[in-house]
Amino acid sequence: MRSADLNCDLGEGYGAYRKGRDDELLDVVTSANIACGFHAGDPSVMRKTVELCLEKGVAIGAHPGLPDLQGFGRREMRITPQEAYDMTIYQIGALYGFVKAAGGVLHHVKPHGALYNMAAVNSELAHAIAEAVYRIEPTLVIYGLSGSELIRAGERFGLQTASEVFADRTYQEDGTLTPRSSGTALIHNEAEAAAQVLRMVRQGSVLTIKQTEIRIKADTVCIHGDGNRAVEFARKIRNTLETEGVSVRSVAVEKSF
Amino acid sequence: MRSADLNCDLGEGYGAYRKGRDDELLDVVTSANIACGFHAGDPSVMRKTVELCLEKGVAIGAHPGLPDLQGFGRREMRITPQEAYDMTIYQIGALYGFVKAAGGVLHHVKPHGALYNMAAVNSELAHAIAEAVYRIEPTLVIYGLSGSELIRAGERFGLQTASEVFADRTYQEDGTLTPRSSGTALIHNEAEAAAQVLRMVRQGSVLTIKQTEIRIKADTVCIHGDGNRAVEFARKIRNTLETEGVSVRSVAVEKSF
Amino acid sequence: MRSADLNCDLGEGYGAYRKGRDDELLDVVTSANIACGFHAGDPSVMRKTVELCLEKGVAIGAHPGLPDLQGFGRREMRITPQEAYDMTIYQIGALYGFVKAAGGVLHHVKPHGALYNMAAVNSELAHAIAEAVYRIEPTLVIYGLSGSELIRAGERFGLQTASEVFADRTYQEDGTLTPRSSGTALIHNEAEAAAQVLRMVRQGSVLTIKQTEIRIKADTVCIHGDGNRAVEFARKIRNTLETEGVSVRSVAVEKSF
Amino acid sequence: MRSADLNCDLGEGYGAYRKGRDDELLDVVTSANIACGFHAGDPSVMRKTVELCLEKGVAIGAHPGLPDLQGFGRREMRITPQEAYDMTIYQIGALYGFVKAAGGVLHHVKPHGALYNMAAVNSELAHAIAEAVYRIEPTLVIYGLSGSELIRAGERFGLQTASEVFADRTYQEDGTLTPRSSGTALIHNEAEAAAQVLRMVRQGSVLTIKQTEIRIKADTVCIHGDGNRAVEFARKIRNTLETEGVSVRSVAVEKSF
Repeated sequence: MRSADLNCDLGEGYGAYRKGRDDELLDVVTSANIACGFHAGDPSVMRKTVELCLEKGVAIGAHPGLPDLQGFGRREMRITPQEAYDMTIYQIGALYGFVKAAGGVLHHVKPHGALYNMAAVNSELAHAIAEAVYRIEPTLVIYGLSGSELIRAGERFGLQTASEVFADRTYQEDGTLTPRSSGTALIHNEAEAAAQVLRMVRQGSVLTIKQTEIRIKADTVCIHGDGNRAVEFARKIRNTLETEGVSVRSVAVEKSF
Repeated sequence: MRSADLNCDLGEGYGAYRKGRDDELLDVVTSANIACGFHAGDPSVMRKTVELCLEKGVAIGAHPGLPDLQGFGRREMRITPQEAYDMTIYQIGALYGFVKAAGGVLHHVKPHGALYNMAAVNSELAHAIAEAVYRIEPTLVIYGLSGSELIRAGERFGLQTASEVFADRTYQEDGTLTPRSSGTALIHNEAEAAAQVLRMVRQGSVLTIKQTEIRIKADTVCIHGDGNRAVEFARKIRNTLETEGVSVRSVAVEKSF
Repeated sequence: MRSADLNCDLGEGYGAYRKGRDDELLDVVTSANIACGFHAGDPSVMRKTVELCLEKGVAIGAHPGLPDLQGFGRREMRITPQEAYDMTIYQIGALYGFVKAAGGVLHHVKPHGALYNMAAVNSELAHAIAEAVYRIEPTLVIYGLSGSELIRAGERFGLQTASEVFADRTYQEDGTLTPRSSGTALIHNEAEAAAQVLRMVRQGSVLTIKQTEIRIKADTVCIHGDGNRAVEFARKIRNTLETEGVSVRSVAVEKSF
Repeated sequence: MRSADLNCDLGEGYGAYRKGRDDELLDVVTSANIACGFHAGDPSVMRKTVELCLEKGVAIGAHPGLPDLQGFGRREMRITPQEAYDMTIYQIGALYGFVKAAGGVLHHVKPHGALYNMAAVNSELAHAIAEAVYRIEPTLVIYGLSGSELIRAGERFGLQTASEVFADRTYQEDGTLTPRSSGTALIHNEAEAAAQVLRMVRQGSVLTIKQTEIRIKADTVCIHGDGNRAVEFARKIRNTLETEGVSVRSVAVEKSF
């Protein structure tokens, strides 16, 4: 593959609260996943973030999460597939309102936090979320963990999917992420992380924690927006890719609106 | 005028809470104002209410309110025009998501409770709300109190407007509603209320509390969904209109989508 | 045992929403579990319910739940023991404010819905909730499922506990409730349910779904407040107990305040 | 007067959001007003802030606000006195839970933002808030704007009051603060601000914007926790006072618990 998309969660403030250096990150990433008011984000933050994305030419995605502002959408909740469908429609619609009002185009949908994790392994929730995306607008690209149930569900609905990989997380033999509870879950060395991204994007493979090389589909790379060095790390990834001849740009939409 | 629209607030439940007899009301009214999650309504209630409206052929409107579930959107909040714009876009978008997913068409927007009242007299808030409607979809009809700032703001943006009148409220000499704090604010007699509606719709006039006849524009009649006799009262209004040859149907959209 | 406590969840309205026939139920039950604003209840509902309990002489308990108004606290959330501790302290404190302001005494604490269920089987969450109760006021009685982790955790802290049993649920051989997913989970016949309560209270035993008699500790009986016949069913249970010579009264506090 | 109290709003984070440099501010101020979950603060933030105050020996106050997290409690809402009473009881109780669980003592109550402003001029709201404080614990000190309705209401209930003054705000001839909309509302020069505090505390007077000297009661000085130089400014005020022989300590409670 000659190109890669860098995506980042943005617009995660709420009311008087600020979070992340959105302005700087938008100079580095090519896709923004904008919080839709359930786990973070409020109408004013959403409007400003959409405007900033349009100004910077970054692809706009909805980033629906669980209704848990206090837990930032990171606490799993036992919701039904119907509830997952409903909250996905609601949040995509809300963001779509701002995109349409600003004359832009909504590009993709990526679930947030616990909803993302549950949709990676629970086929019923994955189906419900994919159906919500399909019903609201079938040209939207669905972003999900590479090899996940969500990607499979998106494919079943004929949606364009983008398989997401991580720069700073290690992978197990079966292609899943090493759990955070493990001591080897994270890659702390920035050069190693950049090298992993390069391999995933260019060769379609990753070295597991046991140093086996396995296949992995890598359409888009997750860039974390929090942490002191988030922006610097994102630039490092981008520079490595571009230096090595990989074009960094948002996922091209295959179907016409 | 030979036709009249009857509109009613619907989808006002939340989670385990139910409110109103939506199913029965939808057999009587021609326009539904669906709560969008701020003062009432949640994603599941919104989906079900949209589906019910499509099934019954009732025109679907967004009913954005203040972010005050505890106060049911009835407590005035000192918000800025920008905040009014943002919360209106968010809520219209959210409802639009369900309408689009169900293959329907969004027809109108009517602010709720305190937002409706503030938009009736505050020209800046009215402007912000009308701009939100215009920006998200200029073919949407804006419903507002007859003679209000909101109607004027809608007209300035070239939006189609629907002037709303009340069956069970009395009017003052200047065309405004008698405040609820007054003992003469309400019409308790159903026959009188129906007669007032008929006069407003057919003759474009209303008798004030001083029995003066004044002009009033009446495109749509507000039907209250709460109260023990809400459905019966709605039927009474509808029967009176139809018996007198007034066609009861939703506001026809003048512009094409 | 010669006495039994009947407890019921109350004060479950929110803002404009009403739920349950609190006034009538308070004539039948002896302990009220009052929602504290997270899964239901708001400050005004809490104040009114506390006042009503004092007027009727019903023991007042805090009924803390998960922060999920939309799901009525019934959806499990993956919270940490620390979060369970914090949300329990917060909600007990809030209710205590109303009780103290009204000159009453807070009697017990019973977790709600998913928090109750998680605390029944998860010893860490149970420990955290019991510790919260102990720290805020060690004379409070902790209500939990008979035979549950919560009861054990309360005992470890030296708290007085009240083991709760159900009138309309069947029990399995190991003393746990038959899951609701099973067709035999519920007892629909009111006479049978009343007989089960009588046996549990007087003999300290219950017949399982396999008709085996097993021991069960029954200090308090859960009375459901929802359903059309809730009040009638509660009266039936109470009448059966009183007719058979069982005194119906709230759990006596063994320690002095 | 030989002593002065410096109070500051603290514990204003929420979930994943942080706000203010609480740890450093607690080394400078003598009273903390802790957010109670309505306009800011969540159970975990509250617990931690209470523990920090106890560790640093800072007097703990409840800081109840309007139920408007998105607006940070700064947007006025048209609430009834009964609603003000109820939300005050709820929030004081919730904080009291953490204080009691940690073995501390609740010292005072200061309303936040729009609730503070409304209680300064609206005698009915002021009465309701003072009554809530009185009912929940009559030994609590009520903090309010010097010369405000809230101070008068507190006195009517026999509560101990602390009249609050501002370091960086100018005063008008009638003793009220110059509105923020005016260009002369703020004192930007730190030395001038410190001098104003010194005069208010030692002489009980302030120079108005017209350079008239008027009487002002100054029991406690509001220290703003936000802004880049908040901590430095707070230290400047404290140093000035101590250098000039004013003892900086929390408001002594006159009545026994």
